[in-house]
Amino acid sequence: MKIFRYEDVKALEVDGAPGVTIRWVINEKTGAPNFAMRVFEVRPGAATPYHRHWYEQEMFILEGTGLAVGADGEEPLEPGKVLFVLPYDWHQIKNTGSTTMRFICVIPLRPPQEEKGGETRC
Amino acid sequence: MKIFRYEDVKALEVDGAPGVTIRWVINEKTGAPNFAMRVFEVRPGAATPYHRHWYEQEMFILEGTGLAVGADGEEPLEPGKVLFVLPYDWHQIKNTGSTTMRFICVIPLRPPQEEKGGETRC
Repeated sequence: MKIFRYEDVKALEVDGAPGVTIRWVINEKTGAPNFAMRVFEVRPGAATPYHRHWYEQEMFILEGTGLAVGADGEEPLEPGKVLFVLPYDWHQIKNTGSTTMRFICVIPLRPPQEEKGGETRC
Repeated sequence: MKIFRYEDVKALEVDGAPGVTIRWVINEKTGAPNFAMRVFEVRPGAATPYHRHWYEQEMFILEGTGLAVGADGEEPLEPGKVLFVLPYDWHQIKNTGSTTMRFICVIPLRPPQEEKGGETRC
């Protein structure tokens, strides 16, 4: 069993998303065989790109307030909200509040049948 | 994209673990193809069983304080702690505080190569 604080993992800038960082808190390097847990931080006024990709995302909002933007419109986000993004769903997370938004996002480590996806995994 | 509050999913008692509940916030019924997100709540003084199983767990402590018990001893838990439980690692979560402990726990939906595991998935 490995136990540590999420802040012990370095926060990396996300390409194409100023004001957004990612910490890969559990991934292949930790020994994970199937899926990775990441912690994102989004500064007030910042947002992830409006994008989609081959993999699903299982997300949980920890702190802050904002909006989830999808093909069907916008939904408010606050701590305790769960988001399930299906493969190829369009999505974006916007911080519309005055404090840092922080959320967990879990994704598979590899495509089904090793199919290759070309996108950045954010 | 599906968005809802974690409390919208029914909390179920966990067999053999009085004072512990589980919410399967994302699973096959939500449309998840690979892994499930659950939210556990542990009452003060309660604990999960000391147990192990074929699948890994990726966990994040949301609220409360307690201990993670493993083969190498105990480690304190508080919000922001990340736990990675490898397949077949012994583990237990104890709430030693005075408030409900709440954590996220993500697990694979099926064994590698459809091997069957017989344990309760908690």
